[in-house]
Amino acid sequence: MIHIRPATPADVPLMLAFIHELAEFEREPHSVKMTEEQLLEDGFGNDPQYDCLIAEWDGAPAGWALFFPIYSTWRGRGLHLEDLFIRPQFRGRGIGKALLRRVAAIAAEKGCTKLQWEVLDWNQPAIDFYHSIGGFMLNEWRIMRVTGDALAALAASETEGKV
Amino acid sequence: MIHIRPATPADVPLMLAFIHELAEFEREPHSVKMTEEQLLEDGFGNDPQYDCLIAEWDGAPAGWALFFPIYSTWRGRGLHLEDLFIRPQFRGRGIGKALLRRVAAIAAEKGCTKLQWEVLDWNQPAIDFYHSIGGFMLNEWRIMRVTGDALAALAASETEGKV
Repeated sequence: MIHIRPATPADVPLMLAFIHELAEFEREPHSVKMTEEQLLEDGFGNDPQYDCLIAEWDGAPAGWALFFPIYSTWRGRGLHLEDLFIRPQFRGRGIGKALLRRVAAIAAEKGCTKLQWEVLDWNQPAIDFYHSIGGFMLNEWRIMRVTGDALAALAASETEGKV
Repeated sequence: MIHIRPATPADVPLMLAFIHELAEFEREPHSVKMTEEQLLEDGFGNDPQYDCLIAEWDGAPAGWALFFPIYSTWRGRGLHLEDLFIRPQFRGRGIGKALLRRVAAIAAEKGCTKLQWEVLDWNQPAIDFYHSIGGFMLNEWRIMRVTGDALAALAASETEGKV
């Protein structure tokens, strides 16, 4: 039996375990720089950066969803689903769909016009699942990013009034 | 001469004009459902959903940037740049780059490890510009979304304990 509940500070070690398990699946186990301290501060401190839900199956931690608000200048408020992960031994029981439904219900309560997330283009089982629940892919759009030294260099070059 | 400043409530009509002008360029002029009232409430009300900067050239409104916080379970805080727009008659003067630098500086101040945005895959001038300032494209990732009736249906199907 599924039970979905909001995460509490006591869940932080479990949340970090889920983060590492998903990174393994995504073939980037060494990309995780998160710590329990940061996850605690960023989720349960004075200025929360995310919300999350824990899914249990007969009391055992089975998966989770982490999400935060986003904004569209065309449509207003939305939710971004950053992580949705079900441990392999708990898959095929509808837990991912139950988590997505709960996040969709939260989005609707908040007056959001969209729920959005990202998917690896080689993860066909996930893509099929997302289509089955009414999702669509934005085929023309690509994500661009600046990080690390390049972000620091761009920030340091900030010279108002001089172009 | 460029001047970049934070937007104020008095800028809302200008901001909505920029939103419509960018939607025209993106070939989706009818997709904009935003109103001045909503933009004012969402940006300057009790629970702000975004920040934005206005760029002026010799006192004339030339462009803008709108952004908000995002979160990565691998790296922590980030900023998402939702809109970056320069009016055609003001292009080629470094205003877009100046706005990006300022947003990057704000990201660095906030302890963000990434600044992220989306680009249309046919907008090669934008892609070239983003590469020139140290950006990179996430080639494997695609954006998925559920909206409107499909989001309402998914939310309504939320049935904890029954799967």
